This record gives sequence, C-alpha cells and structure tokens, in this order.
Amino acid sequence: MRITFITTNKHKFVEVSQLLRGYQIELEHLDQSYEENHDTSLEEIARNAAYTMACALRQPVVLEDTGLFFEAYDGFPGALPKFVFATLGYQGIFKLLEGESRNAYFKTVAGFCMPNGKPILFEGILRGMIAKNVHEANKDVMPYDRIFIPEGASRVIAQFSIAEKNIFSQRAKAFTKFGQYIAENYA
Amino acid sequence: MRITFITTNKHKFVEVSQLLRGYQIELEHLDQSYEENHDTSLEEIARNAAYTMACALRQPVVLEDTGLFFEAYDGFPGALPKFVFATLGYQGIFKLLEGESRNAYFKTVAGFCMPNGKPILFEGILRGMIAKNVHEANKDVMPYDRIFIPEGASRVIAQFSIAEKNIFSQRAKAFTKFGQYIAENYA
Repeated sequence: MRITFITTNKHKFVEVSQLLRGYQIELEHLDQSYEENHDTSLEEIARNAAYTMACALRQPVVLEDTGLFFEAYDGFPGALPKFVFATLGYQGIFKLLEGESRNAYFKTVAGFCMPNGKPILFEGILRGMIAKNVHEANKDVMPYDRIFIPEGASRVIAQFSIAEKNIFSQRAKAFTKFGQYIAENYA
Repeated sequence: MRITFITTNKHKFVEVSQLLRGYQIELEHLDQSYEENHDTSLEEIARNAAYTMACALRQPVVLEDTGLFFEAYDGFPGALPKFVFATLGYQGIFKLLEGESRNAYFKTVAGFCMPNGKPILFEGILRGMIAKNVHEANKDVMPYDRIFIPEGASRVIAQFSIAEKNIFSQRAKAFTKFGQYIAENYA
C-alpha cells in the first residue's frame, strides 16, 4: 500500500521508513508543513492535519506530532517542546524542576487518514526522567535527548545509537502500532 | 468607516470600542476564531490573520494578538501567555524568575487590512515587572494582571479600574495608533 508521510524533517522520514520495513507499506515523503495549533493537544493536531491533508491530496496520508510532558507541570512543555527549549533553554528547564519531580514522558501521536475517511490515531509513550546535567554531545542531537534518561536506563537518549533508540522510542511504538494496523486492515 | 473587529473575547470588543470613540469608526463585532500559529511572532499572527480574514469576509477587518515577554527568558512566554499560565501556574512562573530579572513587558499587535490590501500593524507596549506575590483579586481578572506592576506604579494592574487601565495599557496604545491612522487615511 502506498502512503504519503508528511513531514518537513527528513530524519523523521528515514527513521519511520526503517520502522515500517516488513509491513508492506510503500512510504512516500512529502516535505510540506501543515496547520499545527500547538496550544491544543497532540491528538487534535494529528487528527485535524491527517484529515485535512488526506482530503487535499486525495491520498492516504500519515503524519505525527511529538510532545514532552513533565510530571511536575501538567501539560508542560506538552506540544510545544521546541518553543520551550528555544525560550527557556536548559537553564530555565532545570530551574523549573528544582526540588520537583523530574519524571517526564515523551509522547508521539501518529495520525493516519484515507481521503474522506475518519482519521485514526496511534500513540507511543516513552517514560523516563530529566537528568540534572546536560550530556555533552555533538550538536546534531535533539536538545531534549541530552537530558532525558529513559526508564530503566542509566544514560540519556543521546548516548544510545539510532538503531538502539528505534527499539524503545515513543515514535517507534506509535509507528509499530500503525504498521500492524495497516497489515491487518489493508494487506 | 465600518470595520469588523474579530475576537472571541467580548470584553476585548467592549474595551476597544471605547478606545476608538472619537475616531469615526463604526466597529462591528465578529465572534469568530482564526488561525493563530502561536509559535511564530505576534506580528506574523496579526499580519496573516488580518489579510486572510479581510479577503474571506470582503470587508475591512482589525484584530489583535497580545503577548508577554520576560527579560530573563528571550521570547517567553511570548505569544503563549495562556498556555504558560495554564501549565506552569504562578508557582512555576515565580520559580523561573527566582534570582533573575523580573522586568517584563506586554505587547499588543493590532492588524488592520482592507480586502486584498496589504495588512498594516500597530504596536503598543507596556513595560513593568513581575511582582513576588499574587495579588488577591476576584477571579474575573486576567491572571497576569494580578502579578504585573506597570513601570512607575506601585501596584499590580488588577488594582487599577478598567478606565484607568485603558489610559496606559499596551492595547490602548496600539488601538490609539490604529484610530489615528484611520482618521488620517480614511476620514
């Protein structure tokens, strides 16, 4: 089955292509942005965008939105991790978490939709905690990957290889569910 | 001149109507939401929305977006004051500002556009600082008004009357510029 994956991030496309190997999906990359009202939820963003884009393109589409959630502050940074890092930086984030729970989780919501169909969502969560220091890493790493320690691990995400990260990441969980759904319903 | 003011906040409509008395503007209220990509700037939001809505409605429109900016964190909470208060609350905001500059400013950007015209922006800024305590006030007050002390004042915005606030507020400054522009160009 041919499905268009809409993302302006080519690394995401490569990552998801690898995750979907073995599910008989021919994933095509469309490098295009879409409406993302980031002060709603990841679910709303993925649902609305998948529906709108599938209708506009008249093709089956899949896309995703990923957020980060601190236990200490309900819904923060939520669907706005980029904005929060750009404005507060590590310094502000550490300040917010001083003396508070450092538990946090990443969540990816993938939205799939057939043209004029009903959007279907697939969720993946990665629990962990925010470290007290920033791990030294090359600048190509996502900023939160340098401070997020997955549950059960003793090092931050940036210290894992990409192949390792693809085993446990929230995005891997969401897209594995998606691949299984396609295999069961469209094979 | 008849101009449609687009806002889902009826208090804003009343406030701006009062501000525009004396400028020969017949302000009509349209209670409708429009696209607001809040991780861009206030200027981008106002410019895009004014243009899009003037074209869609085929009427002259004006609308506004207001943000808050802490000197200690560049661009925060920026165009997202609602999201930040809803997730961090007073506790998180005070934590972020502990030992940092408490200087801050409110900024309103009003966007005016004729159908198929070029959007024109009007800016108003109110400088001040974030108090160390939350002023007790009835719940009808905007949350930041209970912690924002305007420059030169010794009390928070919530302690001023609405009429007083309309003399010095960032919104009053932006819409006074707007009213003068209309008087000069369309009278």
